[in-house]
Amino acid sequence: MRQLTPEALNPAILNVQYAVRGELAIRAEELRVQLKGENHGLPFDRIISSNIGNPQQKGLDQPPITFTRQVAALMEWPALADIAPDAFPKDVVARAKELHEAIGSIGAYSHSQGVPFIRENVAKFIEERDGFPSDPNHIFLTGGASAGVSLLISMLISVPHKSGVLIPIPQYPLYTATLARFNGVPLPFHLDEAADWAISIHDIEAAIEKAHREGITAKALVIINPGNPTGALLDEDTQIELVKLCEKHSLVLLADEVYQVNLHKPTTHPFTSFKKIVSQTQSPVLLVSLHSISKGVSGECGRRGGYFECTNFPADILDLIYKMVSVSLCPPLSGQIGVDTMIRPPNPGEESYDLWKKETDEIHATLAHRTKTMSGRLNALPGVSCVDSPGALYLYPQIRLPDQAIETAREAGKEPDAFYALQLLHETGICVVPGSGFGQKEGQWHYRLTCLCPGVEDYVRKLEEFHEKFLQRYSGAN
Amino acid sequence: MRQLTPEALNPAILNVQYAVRGELAIRAEELRVQLKGENHGLPFDRIISSNIGNPQQKGLDQPPITFTRQVAALMEWPALADIAPDAFPKDVVARAKELHEAIGSIGAYSHSQGVPFIRENVAKFIEERDGFPSDPNHIFLTGGASAGVSLLISMLISVPHKSGVLIPIPQYPLYTATLARFNGVPLPFHLDEAADWAISIHDIEAAIEKAHREGITAKALVIINPGNPTGALLDEDTQIELVKLCEKHSLVLLADEVYQVNLHKPTTHPFTSFKKIVSQTQSPVLLVSLHSISKGVSGECGRRGGYFECTNFPADILDLIYKMVSVSLCPPLSGQIGVDTMIRPPNPGEESYDLWKKETDEIHATLAHRTKTMSGRLNALPGVSCVDSPGALYLYPQIRLPDQAIETAREAGKEPDAFYALQLLHETGICVVPGSGFGQKEGQWHYRLTCLCPGVEDYVRKLEEFHEKFLQRYSGAN
Repeated sequence: MRQLTPEALNPAILNVQYAVRGELAIRAEELRVQLKGENHGLPFDRIISSNIGNPQQKGLDQPPITFTRQVAALMEWPALADIAPDAFPKDVVARAKELHEAIGSIGAYSHSQGVPFIRENVAKFIEERDGFPSDPNHIFLTGGASAGVSLLISMLISVPHKSGVLIPIPQYPLYTATLARFNGVPLPFHLDEAADWAISIHDIEAAIEKAHREGITAKALVIINPGNPTGALLDEDTQIELVKLCEKHSLVLLADEVYQVNLHKPTTHPFTSFKKIVSQTQSPVLLVSLHSISKGVSGECGRRGGYFECTNFPADILDLIYKMVSVSLCPPLSGQIGVDTMIRPPNPGEESYDLWKKETDEIHATLAHRTKTMSGRLNALPGVSCVDSPGALYLYPQIRLPDQAIETAREAGKEPDAFYALQLLHETGICVVPGSGFGQKEGQWHYRLTCLCPGVEDYVRKLEEFHEKFLQRYSGAN
Repeated sequence: MRQLTPEALNPAILNVQYAVRGELAIRAEELRVQLKGENHGLPFDRIISSNIGNPQQKGLDQPPITFTRQVAALMEWPALADIAPDAFPKDVVARAKELHEAIGSIGAYSHSQGVPFIRENVAKFIEERDGFPSDPNHIFLTGGASAGVSLLISMLISVPHKSGVLIPIPQYPLYTATLARFNGVPLPFHLDEAADWAISIHDIEAAIEKAHREGITAKALVIINPGNPTGALLDEDTQIELVKLCEKHSLVLLADEVYQVNLHKPTTHPFTSFKKIVSQTQSPVLLVSLHSISKGVSGECGRRGGYFECTNFPADILDLIYKMVSVSLCPPLSGQIGVDTMIRPPNPGEESYDLWKKETDEIHATLAHRTKTMSGRLNALPGVSCVDSPGALYLYPQIRLPDQAIETAREAGKEPDAFYALQLLHETGICVVPGSGFGQKEGQWHYRLTCLCPGVEDYVRKLEEFHEKFLQRYSGAN
């Protein structure tokens, strides 16, 4: 029989790129296997996966929130509440009982849009956060934010290679990967690194016009706030301008707000949801706001849970979204109950509250401390500049590389920042993602690293030592 | 701003149909809400969702396997093993410890292809089942079988509206829905109801030739074994012929084997995997075999877990599949550990074994009893014929409807079987799926119902009484 070749597959598949789990991450997995052997010959003992925001991974071990896991354990085996009545706080038992009555077995498919009771709770959470009404019927629980992004972009690409989506550069590569898969056109606009990664309305307008000249219709605008990989936070004036821009150009606003509680400087850099801005300004703009349990202080990536809320969507479009999610049956119940515990933490006075407060305070403080330490120390290195991110889980330092390094990289067929990151991996075990995976201006080089790490001092020292050695190696002086 | 209309969306989305959660299911949800009100005015007190194979749903309450849930509870909160040491059998504690060491926190992303340790266990399970080697690197854990089907079909459709996939009629509508979404062409071949839904190689050849004449290339053949909705099981001779057919026409064989342990007559109608047939015959055919934790005796639909194994796939194609799953990050860990407990049940002599045996024996016996009772009684009704399914979770009775019913249905703009099913729902609360959702020969009418129900006697009586009333209502005699 004829063998199957990549050329016989959907060509869109071949164009998909996803650097977060790309070449560097695959090489890191190989090294991880090599480390298990005796006499592995590597100059480090562990891989530190700073390529992905995965707080609970081995070696990082950000602890899960106890309340979340206690409720989940009782949902798995409800008889436990009777078998081991003293093992659980009373509010946990009550919460699990309430959820069990609403859901039944977590081994059953739920409503395709998500358990109605949990959607009602999400709507209340949004109302309390923003001060404006939210409708549970306009909320879709998902298997993480990525599933929602993929669904929505696949629906919006109406004409292959002619429908575009505006995306910030640098961006989270899920967006370009999803556009490639569904033959949509990425319409990039650059964030201003010198202004702490600010958005320029003018640059977005220019991207829309450029697309128009090329016969491409902009269908949606992606905004990631707090930013990934930049960690930047939008101010409300900019948000209002962005909403007006979407109105003017009939763009669906895709607001990726999964880092909304990862705020390291909440006084000077608070988070305001786009839902609140749209409600306040009574804008008719079509808004999708995405949230997730994978980030924040929850860090429950493995459960695959999240939601998106549609604002100002016509009923027939909501019906179509429902039809599409129904083909996938339902989001994982483990993720759905994870959403519920995230948006309904214990209240003051309840038995679990103190522990919950202590755990979440510690996670916030640790992240803020690490981010500040890492950005400060990286900034002090020769040829490195790093915006001190007020939010999210990442830093995106710019590295100015010696000409000789750039030439050597080019000769090896690598992007210079990928070349740098591969050497970093091989010499320290630290896996980061080259900026070429997120996008950057021509001739600039970056990498993204998470602010999740074991022992920040030791970790930063490794980054520093490597960087200095790298500069020496490729300086004109040798 | 311009309003978003369905016409401005990807036109493929509009063509997607998924009857299992379609009109009937949506109406059933509305009635379920109505039932909560006082004086609901409906002639029944509960909705029985026989439209979907969802064993643990409220009202059906097939119990989860205790072993599965105990392991899962300990994975959620590992400290429980110390806090309540007497609450769990020793083998459960040992199993959870082993999994925890291999995985770490279930709140972390795993390898995108699934936890390596669990894939190794799946490979051992397949080797023991079939007697042939299996490679963990060729196994992809998924969020249920549907996720795998959707991914694979989306990759195989290389030319929109010109790449086809052969699907049995009747089929599980996931296949047509996925083809519609990715602009693939369904190439139907009919199963022979008079021969207990047998497959005819000749009919598949005819479908390939017809496609060829229309400029459509058949890329893959879908086989559902045990069948859905038919419950039929293939014999090995037919399986060998199907493999040869795939070789001859260079078709990828997509073997949906999610009902492989739902066997009601295992002596006369055993299950043989396509992996075994391909291995035995040393066929070079590209095979994807799909399995799930949602069916079988596990019934863990809500966890979203499953796997597919690729046989004879070239390395570059496996790399592309890996790239695509990496964009979705990873399957839910709750589903992954569900796969592990399904394929590694307790062994004889271990503390959990007796209970596991009792629970699974009961589920098997109940399903076999219900299927036999339901098919026997349905067969005895005037105008109904129903193959006595040896496998899976469904029956697919054919109903011969009075001309007057057909005319009335047509006047109401309904398919006659949807018209029948809607009346069944409104009069009894039983929700089934009309045959038009699965496919049937012109002029024939069917419906699919699950063999999951509370109290089979009472349930079948409702079906009988409704059917006789329906015939009276539309017989020429009134």
